[in-house]
Amino acid sequence: MSYQTIKYEIHKGIMTLILNRPEQMNTFTYAMSEELLDVLEWANQQDKIRVVIITGAGKAFCAGMDLSGGTSTFETDEAADDFRDVGGKVSLKVYDMKKPVIAAINGAAVGVGITLTLPMDIRIIKKGVKVGFVFGRVGIGPESVSGWFLPKLVGAGKALDWMLTGRYIPTDEAMAAGLIQYEEEDPLAKAKEIAEAIVQNTAATSNAFTRQILWRMTGESNPKRAHLIESKYLYWAARQADAKEGINAFLEKRSPSFSLSSNELPNFFL
Amino acid sequence: MSYQTIKYEIHKGIMTLILNRPEQMNTFTYAMSEELLDVLEWANQQDKIRVVIITGAGKAFCAGMDLSGGTSTFETDEAADDFRDVGGKVSLKVYDMKKPVIAAINGAAVGVGITLTLPMDIRIIKKGVKVGFVFGRVGIGPESVSGWFLPKLVGAGKALDWMLTGRYIPTDEAMAAGLIQYEEEDPLAKAKEIAEAIVQNTAATSNAFTRQILWRMTGESNPKRAHLIESKYLYWAARQADAKEGINAFLEKRSPSFSLSSNELPNFFL
Amino acid sequence: MSYQTIKYEIHKGIMTLILNRPEQMNTFTYAMSEELLDVLEWANQQDKIRVVIITGAGKAFCAGMDLSGGTSTFETDEAADDFRDVGGKVSLKVYDMKKPVIAAINGAAVGVGITLTLPMDIRIIKKGVKVGFVFGRVGIGPESVSGWFLPKLVGAGKALDWMLTGRYIPTDEAMAAGLIQYEEEDPLAKAKEIAEAIVQNTAATSNAFTRQILWRMTGESNPKRAHLIESKYLYWAARQADAKEGINAFLEKRSPSFSLSSNELPNFFL
Repeated sequence: MSYQTIKYEIHKGIMTLILNRPEQMNTFTYAMSEELLDVLEWANQQDKIRVVIITGAGKAFCAGMDLSGGTSTFETDEAADDFRDVGGKVSLKVYDMKKPVIAAINGAAVGVGITLTLPMDIRIIKKGVKVGFVFGRVGIGPESVSGWFLPKLVGAGKALDWMLTGRYIPTDEAMAAGLIQYEEEDPLAKAKEIAEAIVQNTAATSNAFTRQILWRMTGESNPKRAHLIESKYLYWAARQADAKEGINAFLEKRSPSFSLSSNELPNFFL
Repeated sequence: MSYQTIKYEIHKGIMTLILNRPEQMNTFTYAMSEELLDVLEWANQQDKIRVVIITGAGKAFCAGMDLSGGTSTFETDEAADDFRDVGGKVSLKVYDMKKPVIAAINGAAVGVGITLTLPMDIRIIKKGVKVGFVFGRVGIGPESVSGWFLPKLVGAGKALDWMLTGRYIPTDEAMAAGLIQYEEEDPLAKAKEIAEAIVQNTAATSNAFTRQILWRMTGESNPKRAHLIESKYLYWAARQADAKEGINAFLEKRSPSFSLSSNELPNFFL
Repeated sequence: MSYQTIKYEIHKGIMTLILNRPEQMNTFTYAMSEELLDVLEWANQQDKIRVVIITGAGKAFCAGMDLSGGTSTFETDEAADDFRDVGGKVSLKVYDMKKPVIAAINGAAVGVGITLTLPMDIRIIKKGVKVGFVFGRVGIGPESVSGWFLPKLVGAGKALDWMLTGRYIPTDEAMAAGLIQYEEEDPLAKAKEIAEAIVQNTAATSNAFTRQILWRMTGESNPKRAHLIESKYLYWAARQADAKEGINAFLEKRSPSFSLSSNELPNFFL
C-alpha cells in the first residue's frame, strides 16, 4: 500500500497512523478519506495490530476540511440520494473497528479535525491547542456523525453550546466535559504508554466486545437486551483460553499472556 | 400581542423574553404557560429573530409553580386522557424552536423554574442562586419533560441524586455536572454577548439543524441513521448561498454575512 | 430469612444491607447473588422500608468475583441459551426497585464490586479506595449490565477509557466523571444522612416514579413519549393525599408528612 496523505508504522502490536500533509496543517481531503478507509479496513484485519493511534505530522493534528478548492468544496457529482458525507464514512469505519483507537491530538483539531476523533476510544490532547466545532461559521452543520457521537460523550448541554457558538474550546474545558481524557505535553508519548498497557494487560476479544456493547446500547431504553447480550458473550468468553489464562494469571499474581485475536470474537449483536 | 405575565424586547436579532411577575418571584401559572406558548410560536416564525434569551424580572428567575391556589393547583378539569402537563407543553415548544434559546438565570430557579430551562441550549446562572428539582418534596415528580431532558444533560447519576433528594444544588456543582454552562455575575449581559456572537458568526440554518440533530439522535443506538441524515443535510447545505459565503469569508479572512432564514431549512427528519 | 453471605438491619425506614464475607473482601459468589436477589425482592415489598443502603463488612466493599474456584469460575452447567450473568440478574433487580438505593462504598470496589453499584441511585465512596473495571484483564468483558449503565452515568468517553485499559480509577476522577456523587471519610454515615433526609422530605411514590422515568427514557429519541407518561403520572399524583399534604406543608412552611407507599404507584409504563 502506498499512500499520499497518510503514513504509518507498526511496532509491538501498535499501529501509529499519521495524517501527513504537514504543510497544509493536515487538512482533510477526499483523497485522505479514501486512504483512511483503506488503511483502517486493513488494520482491522491484522491480528498483529492490537491498538491504533492516530496523530498528525508537524504542528497540527488536522485543521479541518481543506477549503482551498473554494466554494464548491462540499459539492460532489454524486446524486442527492447517493451522497455520503466523507467524514462520516471514516467515522463509521472507526466505529466498526475491533481494536482500541487512540487520538493523539498534537495540535489544532478543528471541524472535521475534531469530529473524526469522536468515535475513537481515548482522546489525548496537547494543552492549549485549538479545538472547535466551527461548521456553523461556514454555513454547514454537524458532520462525521458528530450529531450522534458528541452528545453521547459530553452531554447535550455542552454539545449544543459548542456547536451553536462555533467557539474555540479551551483544552481544560474540553477535558472537564469528557471530550478529552488526558491533557499532556506529548500526546503521542502518552498514547503509546496507554497502548502498551492495553497490549500487555488486556485481552483482544475483551476490547472488541467492550467497544461494541458500549456504543450499541447507548440508545436502548431497556437494560434487559444488554443483559442478554452480555450473558451470551460471557457464556462464550468463559470457555475460551483467554479467560482461563486471565484467572490463572490473577491467582498466580503474574501478568496474563492472552492468545485470541479480536477477529475471533463472534457477533453477539445479531 | 398583549401579555400579562411576560414581556419582551427585540434588538439586533435578539429577543429578550422576560418572565414578568416579579412580586410573585415569577412563579409559573397556567396563564404564563399560554403566553409562553404563544410568544415562542410567534418568535419561531420571525426571520428577524435569530436568538431568544429568557430571563426573569426582579430578583428571581422563576421560583416554581404558583401554589397560592392551594391543594387543587395541579388539578384541572380536563379528562384524564386529555390532561397534558403545562410545563411539558412549554418544554416541547422550546424543543421545537429553530433558533438557539439561552436561559439567563438571574435568580432562584426551582421546580418548573429550572425544568423549563432544560430544553434550552445554553444556561447561564448567577453564582449562588437557588436551584432545585424539588417536586418530590410536594408529593409529585418530574414534569416539563425533565425525566427525559435532565439525564441527557448531566448523566443519570447526577439526575437521580438531585431528583430523589430534592436538595438545593450549589451553582458550581450544577456547572461541573453540565447543567449550567456559564456562572456569571450578570447572566443577562453574558447571554447577550453570546447571542450577539451567534448572530454575527453563524448561519441560521446551521443552528436550526444542529439543535434538531443533537436531541433527535440521543436515543438512537445506531450511528448510521445520523450519518444518512447529516449526508442529506450536507448535500443541501453545500448548494446554498450561506455555505459559499462561509467558505469565501474564511478564505478572505473576514466575517461572513449569511442570508438564509432558519425557516428555509427543509425537514430532514421525515 | 437466614443468609450466609449478607446481613441487614432496618432502622427508621432505612435498610442497611451488608455484604458479609469480610475475610474474603466480600468477593461475589453465586450464593451471594441468590441471597441479594431474595432480600431485595423482599425489601421492595415492605412498605416500612423507604431507602436501601448497601455497604461492605470489614475493609472492602466488594473486591470482585470470587476466583478461588479457579478457571471454571464463570462456567455453569446451564445451557448456552439459558445462561444469565448472575451479576446482571442482581443489577436488574436493583433497577426494578421502587425505592432509592444508595451504595456506601467503604473500601475496594473492583469488577462486579463496582458494576453492581451502577443501577443504584447514589454512590458514596471513601477517598482513595480501589475502583476498577478490570474484566479485560481476566479475558472477559462488561457484566452486570455495565455495558448499558456505565455510559449513561459518565458518558461514552470515560466508559471506554476505563473499560479498555482496565486501570484503577482515582476516586476524585470517578467523582468528577459522575460515577461517584460524594467522596466521604465515612460513606455509611453520609449514606444514612442522605437516606434520613429522603425519608423525611420526599414522597415514596415520587421517588418510585422518578427512578423509573429517568432510566426508562434514556434511550428514547423523542421527548413526546416522556411528556405523555409524565402527564398521566401528574394527573394521578395531583389527586393523591401526598400532593395535597406537600402543598399544604409548603404553604404552612412545615415538613410534610406523606402517607402513600411506593407500592401504591400505578404502572405508567405499559
